[in-house]
Amino acid sequence: MAKQLNYFVHHVFFWFNKPVSKKDKERFEAALKKLVTIETIVEMHLGVPATTRREVVDRSYTYSLLTTFKNKEDQDIYQNHPIHLKFIDECSDLWENVVVYDSVTI
Amino acid sequence: MAKQLNYFVHHVFFWFNKPVSKKDKERFEAALKKLVTIETIVEMHLGVPATTRREVVDRSYTYSLLTTFKNKEDQDIYQNHPIHLKFIDECSDLWENVVVYDSVTI
Repeated sequence: MAKQLNYFVHHVFFWFNKPVSKKDKERFEAALKKLVTIETIVEMHLGVPATTRREVVDRSYTYSLLTTFKNKEDQDIYQNHPIHLKFIDECSDLWENVVVYDSVTI
Repeated sequence: MAKQLNYFVHHVFFWFNKPVSKKDKERFEAALKKLVTIETIVEMHLGVPATTRREVVDRSYTYSLLTTFKNKEDQDIYQNHPIHLKFIDECSDLWENVVVYDSVTI
């Protein structure tokens, strides 16, 4: 039986300004790796689009960041954490669009 | 330090036909719970929108289904599994739109 992930799932998709350089990617990936050190994150995944291609699959984004939290309060701590604010400050020039899906367990 | 999730993340968002009845929800939630018994799923989360409200947060969907797999091949087994095909057959009348984001670890 699959393992149930934590209650609060926060999934962020980033669409970068084009063209995307190798330097941009290196800067962003280094920043992501710092970001996920925030202590209230329980589980995490730093991703890029898979090779799956079906009509329903959106693979237009550049990066995805999935984090889970025990509860909404822990996610709020993450949102306001200095490391998170620094991440936004240092990297927001890279993206043209961000979409967030926050989900809680049914 | 947060736990790294498995390599292949498959996140599906369902937008239901309106109005959504209690009966529709019960039918869908029961079907989701059967769906996640497919043995190649490692981690999973069945969700509804959280209460977070910011400009970047999309909370227009009805349900989310997050599953992780060891690799793409295990996700392909899931896609073609009789339980998955039965889920689509029995529930696709409920939704007007589905968006899938498949991500692999950077």
